Amino acid sequence: MTNPRLFLLSNSTQSGRGLFDHAMPELLAFLGGPRRLAFVPFALKDRRGYTAKVAERFAQEGIEVVGLGTDARAAKTLAKADAVFVGGGNTFRLVDALQRSGLLAAIRKAVQGGLPYVGSSAGTNVAAPTIRTTNDMPILQPRRFDAIGLVPFQINPHYVDVDPSSTHMGESREQRLREYLEENGVPVLGLREGAWLWREGKVLRLQGANGARLFRRGKAPLEYPPGADLSFLLKKR
Amino acid sequence: MTNPRLFLLSNSTQSGRGLFDHAMPELLAFLGGPRRLAFVPFALKDRRGYTAKVAERFAQEGIEVVGLGTDARAAKTLAKADAVFVGGGNTFRLVDALQRSGLLAAIRKAVQGGLPYVGSSAGTNVAAPTIRTTNDMPILQPRRFDAIGLVPFQINPHYVDVDPSSTHMGESREQRLREYLEENGVPVLGLREGAWLWREGKVLRLQGANGARLFRRGKAPLEYPPGADLSFLLKKR
Repeated sequence: MTNPRLFLLSNSTQSGRGLFDHAMPELLAFLGGPRRLAFVPFALKDRRGYTAKVAERFAQEGIEVVGLGTDARAAKTLAKADAVFVGGGNTFRLVDALQRSGLLAAIRKAVQGGLPYVGSSAGTNVAAPTIRTTNDMPILQPRRFDAIGLVPFQINPHYVDVDPSSTHMGESREQRLREYLEENGVPVLGLREGAWLWREGKVLRLQGANGARLFRRGKAPLEYPPGADLSFLLKKR
Repeated sequence: MTNPRLFLLSNSTQSGRGLFDHAMPELLAFLGGPRRLAFVPFALKDRRGYTAKVAERFAQEGIEVVGLGTDARAAKTLAKADAVFVGGGNTFRLVDALQRSGLLAAIRKAVQGGLPYVGSSAGTNVAAPTIRTTNDMPILQPRRFDAIGLVPFQINPHYVDVDPSSTHMGESREQRLREYLEENGVPVLGLREGAWLWREGKVLRLQGANGARLFRRGKAPLEYPPGADLSFLLKKR
């Protein structure tokens, strides 16, 4: 197994900006000039429309986007691609389609074999071992909560800090992640909007804006600024 | 089957007030002076502490609270109770414990047989056919997403309207419920904090403050004010 190359975005769009604009220069640097990107649109209902929108954005950068389906041709499309991009939307819908189509295992194998992986929001959730730290509504029941597992820790995209002025009585994100840790021992990285993770084999860096917050069982949360080296999170515990 | 009696709260605590204070007079009217309430604390990790807190609150009203466990004694405790109260917390943890213990079916049967049911937040989620419209994080995987099903429609507790000033890019509650309707045909009632549903057999009323918003597939959402008669939602579609 080669060392995986990953680019995991908290969000695809930053408030007031266009699709992927906040991260595009770094994303292009990560991709290193690929000709063809295999796009996984399963997290949205309208797969065709979603793929067209993403293809239009990447065409501006001279990159061809090919949408993956859940049929038998998908494995061949994946094999011919220079990178795979798993788009955001609903994580339950996404992981269900990945499991049913067999693409969950196929993508894992391809990425372990060196295919660069880009994920955004739900696409970042499924790069973790399980979908247990998604923010999404469980609109359908996947067979299992197991995901692709390209990193050994959990990620919570769109991480938001507690708003002290809020009168809403639903759980804060931090409360939800503490509840996760009551039931699970795997740490969770809360990735704020504007932030992403860049993994090159054994090196993992936090990039973009706004940083991240690490939650571990029985320990106080830790804050990490943009640029932090998070490679320690890749070590076997 | 007798006609079920239900009292389904969006939230257990209103901002700035004590536990159940916002609904206690109406809740006591619904209960009609019971001596003993069977409390289901499975949605929180600390079942004993949760039960003690709820017992302390109801003791002020002269009502005895007995906590249900997941052991064999639970059925007997339920049989001796004047009403059952399912508390809030994490819906996945709650439904998992209800399914594993067999209490899901036991509570359904008891309520269909006339035992009054009170639910709050997660306890209101599980009164719906499934947990597919919970806001909670999927911190563990229950065998099934099926819930008690005491009403034939879905409920989204803690419903919040879109905040036009927000720069957060995660899905709004309305977007999440639209995604639910892309995959499911059962309508969802978004129950704002401060609101509750009171069901007496074939009559269902929206009460408390702030009202509710009904989402149906392929139709515009409908707004209902406090006091609205929602009995039409109980009819077979």
